[in-house]
Amino acid sequence: MSNSQISSGDDRRFVLTLGCPDRTGIVAALSGFLAGVGGWITEAAYHSDQTTGWFFTRQAVRADSIGMPVEEFRSRFAEVAAMFGPEAEWQVSDTGAEKSVVLLVSKDSHCLTDLLSRAERGEFPARVSAVVGNHRDLETMTTRFGVPFHHVPFPAGGKEEAFADVRAIVDGYDPDAIVLARFMQILPADLCEAWAGKAINIHHSFLPSFVGARPYHQAFDRGVKLIGATCHYVTADLDAGPIIEQDVSRINHEYSAADMVRQGRDIETLVLARGVRWHLEHRVLVHDRKTVVFQ
Amino acid sequence: MSNSQISSGDDRRFVLTLGCPDRTGIVAALSGFLAGVGGWITEAAYHSDQTTGWFFTRQAVRADSIGMPVEEFRSRFAEVAAMFGPEAEWQVSDTGAEKSVVLLVSKDSHCLTDLLSRAERGEFPARVSAVVGNHRDLETMTTRFGVPFHHVPFPAGGKEEAFADVRAIVDGYDPDAIVLARFMQILPADLCEAWAGKAINIHHSFLPSFVGARPYHQAFDRGVKLIGATCHYVTADLDAGPIIEQDVSRINHEYSAADMVRQGRDIETLVLARGVRWHLEHRVLVHDRKTVVFQ
Amino acid sequence: MSNSQISSGDDRRFVLTLGCPDRTGIVAALSGFLAGVGGWITEAAYHSDQTTGWFFTRQAVRADSIGMPVEEFRSRFAEVAAMFGPEAEWQVSDTGAEKSVVLLVSKDSHCLTDLLSRAERGEFPARVSAVVGNHRDLETMTTRFGVPFHHVPFPAGGKEEAFADVRAIVDGYDPDAIVLARFMQILPADLCEAWAGKAINIHHSFLPSFVGARPYHQAFDRGVKLIGATCHYVTADLDAGPIIEQDVSRINHEYSAADMVRQGRDIETLVLARGVRWHLEHRVLVHDRKTVVFQ
Amino acid sequence: MSNSQISSGDDRRFVLTLGCPDRTGIVAALSGFLAGVGGWITEAAYHSDQTTGWFFTRQAVRADSIGMPVEEFRSRFAEVAAMFGPEAEWQVSDTGAEKSVVLLVSKDSHCLTDLLSRAERGEFPARVSAVVGNHRDLETMTTRFGVPFHHVPFPAGGKEEAFADVRAIVDGYDPDAIVLARFMQILPADLCEAWAGKAINIHHSFLPSFVGARPYHQAFDRGVKLIGATCHYVTADLDAGPIIEQDVSRINHEYSAADMVRQGRDIETLVLARGVRWHLEHRVLVHDRKTVVFQ
Repeated sequence: MSNSQISSGDDRRFVLTLGCPDRTGIVAALSGFLAGVGGWITEAAYHSDQTTGWFFTRQAVRADSIGMPVEEFRSRFAEVAAMFGPEAEWQVSDTGAEKSVVLLVSKDSHCLTDLLSRAERGEFPARVSAVVGNHRDLETMTTRFGVPFHHVPFPAGGKEEAFADVRAIVDGYDPDAIVLARFMQILPADLCEAWAGKAINIHHSFLPSFVGARPYHQAFDRGVKLIGATCHYVTADLDAGPIIEQDVSRINHEYSAADMVRQGRDIETLVLARGVRWHLEHRVLVHDRKTVVFQ
Repeated sequence: MSNSQISSGDDRRFVLTLGCPDRTGIVAALSGFLAGVGGWITEAAYHSDQTTGWFFTRQAVRADSIGMPVEEFRSRFAEVAAMFGPEAEWQVSDTGAEKSVVLLVSKDSHCLTDLLSRAERGEFPARVSAVVGNHRDLETMTTRFGVPFHHVPFPAGGKEEAFADVRAIVDGYDPDAIVLARFMQILPADLCEAWAGKAINIHHSFLPSFVGARPYHQAFDRGVKLIGATCHYVTADLDAGPIIEQDVSRINHEYSAADMVRQGRDIETLVLARGVRWHLEHRVLVHDRKTVVFQ
Repeated sequence: MSNSQISSGDDRRFVLTLGCPDRTGIVAALSGFLAGVGGWITEAAYHSDQTTGWFFTRQAVRADSIGMPVEEFRSRFAEVAAMFGPEAEWQVSDTGAEKSVVLLVSKDSHCLTDLLSRAERGEFPARVSAVVGNHRDLETMTTRFGVPFHHVPFPAGGKEEAFADVRAIVDGYDPDAIVLARFMQILPADLCEAWAGKAINIHHSFLPSFVGARPYHQAFDRGVKLIGATCHYVTADLDAGPIIEQDVSRINHEYSAADMVRQGRDIETLVLARGVRWHLEHRVLVHDRKTVVFQ
Repeated sequence: MSNSQISSGDDRRFVLTLGCPDRTGIVAALSGFLAGVGGWITEAAYHSDQTTGWFFTRQAVRADSIGMPVEEFRSRFAEVAAMFGPEAEWQVSDTGAEKSVVLLVSKDSHCLTDLLSRAERGEFPARVSAVVGNHRDLETMTTRFGVPFHHVPFPAGGKEEAFADVRAIVDGYDPDAIVLARFMQILPADLCEAWAGKAINIHHSFLPSFVGARPYHQAFDRGVKLIGATCHYVTADLDAGPIIEQDVSRINHEYSAADMVRQGRDIETLVLARGVRWHLEHRVLVHDRKTVVFQ
């Protein structure tokens, strides 16, 4: 069974995230509220976006410093948040509650193995509830880690039905994140919408370069000197969703496209792992087509 | 003449930095105070250090949002700061006031040229008031930028007197930073103390590796695969002051020590420029032997 | 006067570069020839391109190990090269002969200042013969380094004539490289052709992302997490010439487009300096639309 | 069962490595020999070390271009190598022959899991023959991949005997590499000697900084801004063996020592994987206390 990292005791936190139109006094109201309930803040990050005029914050508070359950804390905060206008978006989550992730995979094992082993050694605040594959290639790897594997074939002409099956399986787990770990299938628009803000993809290029198929081969043809990978939220616009994380790796003229594929795996693996962890820790706030990432 | 970057109008900020023992309510007190004087916060960063139990913050507030001069703002804040205990260290600075930097150099021109040209194109919130060299090699480069050059020879047996001269010259400018831009002379203990928190050095290794003389040759002998540079505050303990910034650059077996020296210049230049800018923007808070850097 | 780095004595090299269709025996023929003339090889790099079936090499030989002037060495090598087929492209250059660079600039000083100071401290095997600017902004910086500055205005409707002037000035120096150091004007097709393989541009994005104008603003709008710069040979196809070097720098949601512009300067400066040096040291071989770079 | 990547057909190579005192004519002799046996060179790298006066090369030749078995090729090359002096060190290996690796582990799973999964997906030219652990913690992970696990307890006062057991087990597999994948035990001098050039360690710091125990805690105390990892051959001198590969990762004041431990795992994993692959591909030549790495 995949272990999950549920925090307890001293380590348990209530995590509050907020995005709203900026104005004077928000921080004072927020910190006044937190001080009022005795909240011991362990992490606090703020961002005022000059372009959009929005304000963003993430605060982690020791749960044991607040003498009430998360539901009560949430409803008390709702009163404060009301002052920040109807557009305000906020969330309060409890690191003491177990989270769940479902992975969608195809044939490439590197991201899957990495995510399963990170979850198992407690690096993610979530358990991997299930893996769905359009091929059986990764069934053995998945079940080794005690995680159920669902095989949903994608026959030519039967993709719509296949996606309906995938959706039913995934939604059955009510996951906090659906991770396309080199899934190689383009989600239909309705799934993009249904899973908005939860579906995370890894694209094997430094976007916006090399959108679409075979990006390493595109990179090889162009003769770039660095290859990259991009972790982003899935939207109906292909490879154009809000970017969570990117990184690159140096290559040179000696690299064939196959060499890039191999070296690229390490970047894909790291970038996806970071993006998923930050998402699960509520460090990623989306606004319009961009992200604020409070590392 | 070296241009300085004095901000005015919309861009002028009062920058507040604070370090004090952590306890509940500091952020509330701080943000309550700032909201009370109408302060429009444009940057805010916080850090709670679990190991030392200290709290650190840096806040930038639009000067035109606060209806009082910086002196009054400072004395009002002093009352708030008193609540944070006798150990609290804080500062309020005004980006509308010109800052000054003095550079100490020897024969290598790369850091000097870089700092002079950054200052000239307005990348630093300071002017370079003067350059002091123990050789005349860099006099021409300095005066090209309209900056006065002071030559202080360091004869064998006359270092003590030379340092007294350097001190008199430097202190005459009352600088906000004294930058050892590859100065190659070890400051005596009394100068380290007099300039504590203002004297910034660039060491051409990734400290704590390769302390002392000829670090690239030490690196060559050890066969490392990356070379680095370290920007740190100067203390009486050689190359052991609080680190502000570090970076590295990849090398391989083809690099001679001379190749490392050449490639290392680019890292030294960048690391020093970052460190000096962050210092001048009050982004670096020192506590014990370490720094908090709010980028 | 801009110093140049002309090597002499032990350091003088004959540098041989060759690209030709690959077949067995080329290295043997080459090294047999070099051994036959007593050549002491100090650097040798090879690349067999599996995709194009071409072979590339660069060899540096101590001039003092070969008892003949470079012209004779070149004509002897021509006989060997004839065996490698009519498509073979090769060059023999002498590091003891001074090289020349002309810079084209506009208003941004960072690349100009960096290249002038590198040339002055002997980091390039070339002198900067002249700088041509479409504005007078950088005249002072240029003449400080003792380098002549030519002002060629680019009035609306008069670009064709302006480019003719630029061409006449540049060609008058017979340079080994024409460097567009943030020139901000698109070279016409005839100049691209005339200067093919010699005109080097720095583009302020990680190509092929963000071709054309205001790449940092494009990057800001897309929400990327790294910004980059690309040094490439100029071709008639905008920002699509063979890439010599690229690098990136991490940013985050706190960066405005203006912050990216500032931080991007450091990457542009470094990437251009590397590309120009490698070009002047005959480390860059172009084939089709890609480069082989023997660092 | 752990897959191995044995190359065959077009992909099979004879790999020749050589280190010897430099003199004119070595490349000619080598390439003449290879051309004489019809060798189709697919990779060739050379290094002339100016400091030691030694020459190093690695050449990969298509096995099917040479009409003889590897033993005959080796004995023919021995005649050529004799010309390079008695100090010459050379090796001819056949990528068509399976290689073997044994891993030594303790309790941390990240390097183990990564190496097992790379071997399984064919990224290494070797199989993992066995894993030896001084604790049972990693037995399950090992056997999941079909690899035998040997538990050798290291009781206080019984280390000498334990190491004798480890040696017997390891030597029974006659491995091409013994990888200390976070083994946490210091090899005794006799084992260092017996396994010289085959035992590879990962140290969790950027050596030579932070030798010995708890390097992340040392890094935390010093306040460095980057953490690193070093892959090196094991010698009797602790953490001072020839360095194969190093890399670093940026941290800041927000990182606790525990955060460094977590982030450091990713660097350790990558650096060890690169080092092991390069070793198995005969890309690493050791001379004195340094390495030449032909990537």
